[in-house]
Amino acid sequence: MALKVADRAMVPPFIVMDVMSAAAAREAAGERVFHLEVGQPGTGLPRAAAARLAHLIETEPLGYTVALGIPALRERIARLYRDEHGATIPPERILVTTGSSAGFQLAFLAAFEPGDRVGLAAPGYPAYRHILKALGIEPVILPVGPDSRYQPTVAVLEESGEALDGLILASPSNPTGTVIPADELRALTAWCDARGVRLISDEIYHGIVYRDPALSAAGLSENAIVINSFSKYYAMTGWRLGWMVAPPDMIRPLECLAQNMFISAPTLSQHAGLFAMDCTEELQANVARYAANRALLLDALPKAGFDRLAPADGAFYLYADVSRLTNDSPAFCARVLRETGVAITPGLDFDADQGHRFVRVSFAGSTEDMAEAAARLTAWMAEQG
Amino acid sequence: MALKVADRAMVPPFIVMDVMSAAAAREAAGERVFHLEVGQPGTGLPRAAAARLAHLIETEPLGYTVALGIPALRERIARLYRDEHGATIPPERILVTTGSSAGFQLAFLAAFEPGDRVGLAAPGYPAYRHILKALGIEPVILPVGPDSRYQPTVAVLEESGEALDGLILASPSNPTGTVIPADELRALTAWCDARGVRLISDEIYHGIVYRDPALSAAGLSENAIVINSFSKYYAMTGWRLGWMVAPPDMIRPLECLAQNMFISAPTLSQHAGLFAMDCTEELQANVARYAANRALLLDALPKAGFDRLAPADGAFYLYADVSRLTNDSPAFCARVLRETGVAITPGLDFDADQGHRFVRVSFAGSTEDMAEAAARLTAWMAEQG
Repeated sequence: MALKVADRAMVPPFIVMDVMSAAAAREAAGERVFHLEVGQPGTGLPRAAAARLAHLIETEPLGYTVALGIPALRERIARLYRDEHGATIPPERILVTTGSSAGFQLAFLAAFEPGDRVGLAAPGYPAYRHILKALGIEPVILPVGPDSRYQPTVAVLEESGEALDGLILASPSNPTGTVIPADELRALTAWCDARGVRLISDEIYHGIVYRDPALSAAGLSENAIVINSFSKYYAMTGWRLGWMVAPPDMIRPLECLAQNMFISAPTLSQHAGLFAMDCTEELQANVARYAANRALLLDALPKAGFDRLAPADGAFYLYADVSRLTNDSPAFCARVLRETGVAITPGLDFDADQGHRFVRVSFAGSTEDMAEAAARLTAWMAEQG
Repeated sequence: MALKVADRAMVPPFIVMDVMSAAAAREAAGERVFHLEVGQPGTGLPRAAAARLAHLIETEPLGYTVALGIPALRERIARLYRDEHGATIPPERILVTTGSSAGFQLAFLAAFEPGDRVGLAAPGYPAYRHILKALGIEPVILPVGPDSRYQPTVAVLEESGEALDGLILASPSNPTGTVIPADELRALTAWCDARGVRLISDEIYHGIVYRDPALSAAGLSENAIVINSFSKYYAMTGWRLGWMVAPPDMIRPLECLAQNMFISAPTLSQHAGLFAMDCTEELQANVARYAANRALLLDALPKAGFDRLAPADGAFYLYADVSRLTNDSPAFCARVLRETGVAITPGLDFDADQGHRFVRVSFAGSTEDMAEAAARLTAWMAEQG
């Protein structure tokens, strides 16, 4: 007899995967593709860190680590908060995770019971709501747009009238790149604390900013759970390494959950992360490349006709309202890929309600690719008349 | 205000962690410890595989892979089923996971709704029941002992009278090392299929066997979910790499879950696993070492007084009934460590009901360590009179 597949496993796929499949098919046919669809740096682990790893592979058994991560890495991350944010976070509150993906699973399980209601912005990273649903937690969508710089605010929360058990903030945001201003983040944190709402602050794009540095919620409230990652600023996507800053009373439950659900984060990746944190020069060169790419696209795209862009304060994305061009962003992206070779992401991944009229452009690749992609988009848009 | 920590996060810690902490403290004080408590090989990634990795680190960006794993690895694993089991499993049914830990999470989410009831043996790997509980699934403990070689059988299931939605089997088992005989595994699989019970077959100790090879459920029913790992036979614990064989109708839901919950398994680990699968000579030398260690302990421990041992058909554990020596296995293990320097694991991790009178001895380390540990245990037991 055929057995059931659980309803909660029926989470939607990432629509961007369809774009990536089409892009791969095009490349397999020998045609050029400009990858402005992928949310990962065009570079990898800093070279200086890579050079230090080879020795470890040859000489160390690289077995399990303790569940919360190697002490040297937890201490080094604590120093980051001191150096970058002037915040004193004891290393005991830093938990090393298997990417931010594991951080979200652990945070959601530890903070929320089945049936709890967690607010999150649309547009936003789709895995939040899919993981929440798989764990029996109800995502409460907070629609945001240009009026609040595509971010929740205290006013947005008050107006929504929603009773929440938790709130997810992402600053800089994927897909918009917008940063929550420091005063607003302070107000949001205080609002959560006053109402017993657990704040989950996704800070995985910290370090990739083009105006002021982004403030960390870690310095604002011990109740906040901060999620971070080595994937973006440290360009280590495939190493699956991240960290959390946890409330003091949640460390032991998180440790027990992590022991059972993950055992430990990949050992070599933990060493790689520790080494990468010393590679400031190379990492800042990456940010300088993103900044150059951003400037290039912020000049070229509006001239081409993509003139309604979210304010890209950080991360490596431009989120464009293309409602004057299409009401079907997946079809639009498929056509752009087919006719120009430029792969971009339909907004539907990030916003089930409004994403049909948005696209996300990633500028994490090389500046040469950005220039050529911009030229092709400009020519194509001119043809559309 | 202080915020809640979710009840479901309140999973017990591994009790072995207390032993490991005490062992570490002893070593920090300059005293020798024999690590017969840890469930991981004393060796690491095969050296020939390690040598092939350094080049990749220096030259490849090592970004995300597709969620189900690199195609070459999925194809290589499919070949393993053909070569070792004569089973034809299409590569599409192989899913590469972030260790067996991720495999269990994905399997449980995809197969079971909240409130479903899943049978599992006690003694058994504690993370099963802790992950099940965290995901809202009810573990149904099936007590097993020497009468059924510490494994569930159709008779055990029938006698229990439990209505089950799923059944977890582990063969070879942790902590007992017992293997389910081929005929019994066929009967169990048929029993599950006839009743619509989803079988989850934990095969992470496959390849480490001392009598007949263990049969895989992958060749017996398309409904079975098989979980495997690179941690044990391939000695890659810290690389966090495993795989599943999934039912055809579950592949797409598992892919979408994996995209959202894990993105992909660590990229370098996937390449390491592919290389390790070519290192037969080194891997078989590891198994020969385990076999020598096992023979040494099976000779020495009964003479010393540990004479009630589960039949250790595979894995690298001996599970000893020590009820003639103690009724408090954690205190017993603490005393053994303190007075002999030999670290072993109390059975309570594996069996909340009966584990107080069992200990687990791991022989995954060096043969020299086993010999010295056996000598110390023998002398200590003689002193007890």
